[in-house]
Amino acid sequence: MNYPNKIKKTGSKNIEYANRGMSLEYDLNITNQYYLDKNIAVIYKKPTPIKVVNVEYTNNDHEIKKAFFEKPSTTDYNGIYKGKYIDFEAKTTKNKTSFPLSNLPEFQLEHLKKVHLHGGIAFIIFYLEVKNEYYLYLVKDLVTYLDLTPRSSISFKEIEEKGYLIKRTINPPLDYLTVLDSLSLF
Amino acid sequence: MNYPNKIKKTGSKNIEYANRGMSLEYDLNITNQYYLDKNIAVIYKKPTPIKVVNVEYTNNDHEIKKAFFEKPSTTDYNGIYKGKYIDFEAKTTKNKTSFPLSNLPEFQLEHLKKVHLHGGIAFIIFYLEVKNEYYLYLVKDLVTYLDLTPRSSISFKEIEEKGYLIKRTINPPLDYLTVLDSLSLF
Repeated sequence: MNYPNKIKKTGSKNIEYANRGMSLEYDLNITNQYYLDKNIAVIYKKPTPIKVVNVEYTNNDHEIKKAFFEKPSTTDYNGIYKGKYIDFEAKTTKNKTSFPLSNLPEFQLEHLKKVHLHGGIAFIIFYLEVKNEYYLYLVKDLVTYLDLTPRSSISFKEIEEKGYLIKRTINPPLDYLTVLDSLSLF
Repeated sequence: MNYPNKIKKTGSKNIEYANRGMSLEYDLNITNQYYLDKNIAVIYKKPTPIKVVNVEYTNNDHEIKKAFFEKPSTTDYNGIYKGKYIDFEAKTTKNKTSFPLSNLPEFQLEHLKKVHLHGGIAFIIFYLEVKNEYYLYLVKDLVTYLDLTPRSSISFKEIEEKGYLIKRTINPPLDYLTVLDSLSLF
């Protein structure tokens, strides 16, 4: 299995990784802000869970002096659109032909399955960097597919066939709700 | 205006505050875990947003050396129940007769209003410490009431009349979803 998104030790790769990771997140944040401003949907990125160990109190300020990143329990994004609960994870891959499933932790897939079973709309947004393409892949389709053929990666061909292309636009950059609109889910 | 939940400077009060604040949060976390385990609902507390400034990389570990608490944009809890988007804030007050609205920031009320307008179920869980009582107050009722009579606090009498008592039980400790079930919202 490959771990293409693992943080590299060298400085330049680290920055490269950070920019790449931030790019999809940045585009989605801008998109969600657009939805919020236009009163289309209320969808936010969840904060990264951090375990705070030491806090220094100085005058009116609290400075955290020691803390650790914690493993999240769920996905990065959730909210409400047209009365429906929306929950998704955003994944970028640098790979050339497939997305390695090692980059989609079991707890995230389990969480997305639960959301689907409770009547929410659960999906993954894939950014295939080498193709510069974005796809929305509904978890119900992904799960059916994974159950049929368990494996360690999802080929880009599969993502293109089973997922839905999100066209990049100016404003909002990644209009994934319009893609959902076309899928008769509401 | 009073700020009863503001962190006090003295050590003992600080601990007292922490325990009190944690108690409602703790009960709700246990309750949400119960809902998750029993496959009743998928509701989580969001992590506290923290701005990370400095991280030290040592071997395989990342220790945060400098960070600050950030103001959240939304509420503490959200998720899905019976196909509906659920969003709420939990508030504890030590006051004797009323809940000061200074403890419910404008951005949280605005967020809850938006959730309601988009078809979600938005509410506040109040813990009235001196009475040892818990109430679920729907935001649609609170907003109607606030619009009619703008003021700086909500009396306990109002919370008891317009809100719904959450009876404390053994497992789960605060079964707020059963309260929602009784309100013909689904």
